[in-house]
Amino acid sequence: MSQAGTPKVTSLVDLPSSDAKWVKLQKATYTDAKGQERIWEIASRKTTGKSGVDAVAMGNIIYHPTKPPSTILVIQFRPPVNAFTIEWPAGLIDANETPEQAAIREMYEETGYQGKVVSSSPAVSADPGMTSANMVLCMVEVHLGENDPEPEQHLDEGEDIQRVNVPLADLYERLEQFAKEGYVVAAKLYHWAAGVQYAIDHPDLFSKIGEKGSGI
Amino acid sequence: MSQAGTPKVTSLVDLPSSDAKWVKLQKATYTDAKGQERIWEIASRKTTGKSGVDAVAMGNIIYHPTKPPSTILVIQFRPPVNAFTIEWPAGLIDANETPEQAAIREMYEETGYQGKVVSSSPAVSADPGMTSANMVLCMVEVHLGENDPEPEQHLDEGEDIQRVNVPLADLYERLEQFAKEGYVVAAKLYHWAAGVQYAIDHPDLFSKIGEKGSGI
Repeated sequence: MSQAGTPKVTSLVDLPSSDAKWVKLQKATYTDAKGQERIWEIASRKTTGKSGVDAVAMGNIIYHPTKPPSTILVIQFRPPVNAFTIEWPAGLIDANETPEQAAIREMYEETGYQGKVVSSSPAVSADPGMTSANMVLCMVEVHLGENDPEPEQHLDEGEDIQRVNVPLADLYERLEQFAKEGYVVAAKLYHWAAGVQYAIDHPDLFSKIGEKGSGI
Repeated sequence: MSQAGTPKVTSLVDLPSSDAKWVKLQKATYTDAKGQERIWEIASRKTTGKSGVDAVAMGNIIYHPTKPPSTILVIQFRPPVNAFTIEWPAGLIDANETPEQAAIREMYEETGYQGKVVSSSPAVSADPGMTSANMVLCMVEVHLGENDPEPEQHLDEGEDIQRVNVPLADLYERLEQFAKEGYVVAAKLYHWAAGVQYAIDHPDLFSKIGEKGSGI
């Protein structure tokens, strides 16, 4: 065991798919619309369960009687990017879980909060040019009482996840700030916050026909 | 050459990283905050250029004198998900390009439109639990004249990309509809549209302190 400190990747070596537990690299042969046979390289997860969905992320909204509505982000060292990342809580869906069950479980494990799923996205593709990996975005609400203490996390062995509570009104700005400070912001969270900010900054672009000029 | 028709994946075989051109599978050894040595499995791109960013997506806004503001989505068969996907135009950044140069080039190739980049995100991580792949979201504006014809695409050999123009006010609803019809929606585009819709549906959640009740 080396000395404690800032996590870092110390070596990267090629890994044959047959030796991997979580991820595999595959060559797909496919026919295109003209009937031409072509090749594509694909990274896939090995762990996809019966739901057919790999992962769930919790777009969480924390309601408090007297504090501004906020969202909890998680900060953790992510070896694939060799950096600390800013993400919504998320996790892989276990073999026999629905995305909503995984959302409640992972929300509790990573943040300590008992949430309620209020909506779920369709299964959407993480990065469809490269990987079959997909995920569901569950919007999760947490309703706090005035003096509720911050709950304990229930992390798996080896997980080291910090929580940060960000007022929704500041989310986009804070993500930009995190990126300037050297954190790596997850693309999906960034896109959600950028969409919010875009709607706030350009309300007229989203007016339905017949409502022109009414803003949003 | 087989008969023309709907594209499909006909075989999937394990691919050693040494035989792959675009993607590789690696085993990372890293030390965590307690100094403990651990292992993580990573899928990476082999093509990352000098910008350090793999890809760019174009969050495009099409302005027309008399039609509602809209965005162009692209539909293409994506072998990793063995389905047609709904995405914003996007592409890999060439070795000597900036993300903004790639955004203008890819927007022109995939849609035919000459756009202008009005803002760029930080480099954000596609799926930080699994891959080092990252991307920049460039917001791109296209300003059309009243009678501008739909331009020609300039696709690479083997690319077969359909365009669909969606009014911004309908974007979220249309993505939900596409998913119901069997298309696979890209997570990042979905998150942006979901963020827009969330801000429209819950304006009070995003009020800055001191502006409470003013909406957004």
